[in-house]
Amino acid sequence: MDFDSHGLLIDADAGPGILHRLTGVIAGHGGDIGSVSIIENTAAGARVYFEVTTPAWEAMLEELRALPIVRGLDPVKSMQEIYGKRVIVMGGGAQVGQVAMGAINEADRHNIRGEHISVDTIPLVGEQALADAVRAVPRLPRARALVLAGSLMGGDIETAVREVRLTGLLVISLNMAGSVPDAADLVVSDPLQAGVMAVMAIADTAKFTLGRLHRRVF
Amino acid sequence: MDFDSHGLLIDADAGPGILHRLTGVIAGHGGDIGSVSIIENTAAGARVYFEVTTPAWEAMLEELRALPIVRGLDPVKSMQEIYGKRVIVMGGGAQVGQVAMGAINEADRHNIRGEHISVDTIPLVGEQALADAVRAVPRLPRARALVLAGSLMGGDIETAVREVRLTGLLVISLNMAGSVPDAADLVVSDPLQAGVMAVMAIADTAKFTLGRLHRRVF
Repeated sequence: MDFDSHGLLIDADAGPGILHRLTGVIAGHGGDIGSVSIIENTAAGARVYFEVTTPAWEAMLEELRALPIVRGLDPVKSMQEIYGKRVIVMGGGAQVGQVAMGAINEADRHNIRGEHISVDTIPLVGEQALADAVRAVPRLPRARALVLAGSLMGGDIETAVREVRLTGLLVISLNMAGSVPDAADLVVSDPLQAGVMAVMAIADTAKFTLGRLHRRVF
Repeated sequence: MDFDSHGLLIDADAGPGILHRLTGVIAGHGGDIGSVSIIENTAAGARVYFEVTTPAWEAMLEELRALPIVRGLDPVKSMQEIYGKRVIVMGGGAQVGQVAMGAINEADRHNIRGEHISVDTIPLVGEQALADAVRAVPRLPRARALVLAGSLMGGDIETAVREVRLTGLLVISLNMAGSVPDAADLVVSDPLQAGVMAVMAIADTAKFTLGRLHRRVF
């Protein structure tokens, strides 16, 4: 049986072990925690955001509310409901900007029809910085596609691309020098189109399936 | 005494309560958890990413490694080290794209000099969707500035802007119809410049301080 993921903001007393106490109650109600952010943690108090799926939402809230360390509870919309799936774009500033333009434009068209797609970018140079950033994408919540936007990428970036594809992440590369295009799911020459295709590939409102394409380079 | 925040990937057995067990060990070593992402959680196993600051990093790793549920530990660079501070841009697709262009270009110039600034965007329409998204920005890890990019924003979006500014978030608004510009820290007419200014305002490598500006509207 599937349950929806809920967002929950908790204001609590300060101190170490707060997270341990809260996750104990959540686990006791069969709660499946998707993510946790510690928004504030000062001597004055802590504010923690959870995304939780549980068959016993109301009972869990009641027990959390009864904890002496808990000052307040605020159920909120989850990040999935608000910001949705993420396309990550990284590489040289000039190309990242153009890919972002295409992706944002296309996400706008889908979001108007009820989708929730974000386009998140970082301009970065250097083999190690880019390889680190590629390897970190699966740790970004809700990341579904990665676009590598540059003129030359290879070496350890290629290795990182092959690793993250194994986690199910879709990787699109601009048509560029270096070995990264060989390792990507899809290679696109025009940066605007690369951004548009990345969004189409992850949008439920789009009829576009990579597996049905007859070529891999555009 | 300040300690650096470390990234840590943990592969563990599947099952409820995993997070409770892991956070117990971390708390026992005075670990201050900045964020947690559950990357994978299937019947086959769980993969959890922590950002932790602790005075007893090595001892903590050792005790975590000794837990029967832990299959592997992998210290990694933290998201702060890789993706750094975030500028969030939201609103209509046309304007969000232009603000992103300016911000990505400016972030490129700072990141080349050692900064780490990401530019994250979502095209969104509708008062409630935007107000929800504005209120959620403080729950986004590492978010430092928000740019509202549209032609008309007011009502509950204005209220949300006033709320998030109280958390220390910098809010820049395009010069637009509606009451949102009245509530923002800074109002900029040109979307490219709005993106550039947002990045300059949060970059340690830039000499630009909002508090020293003699006007609030550009």
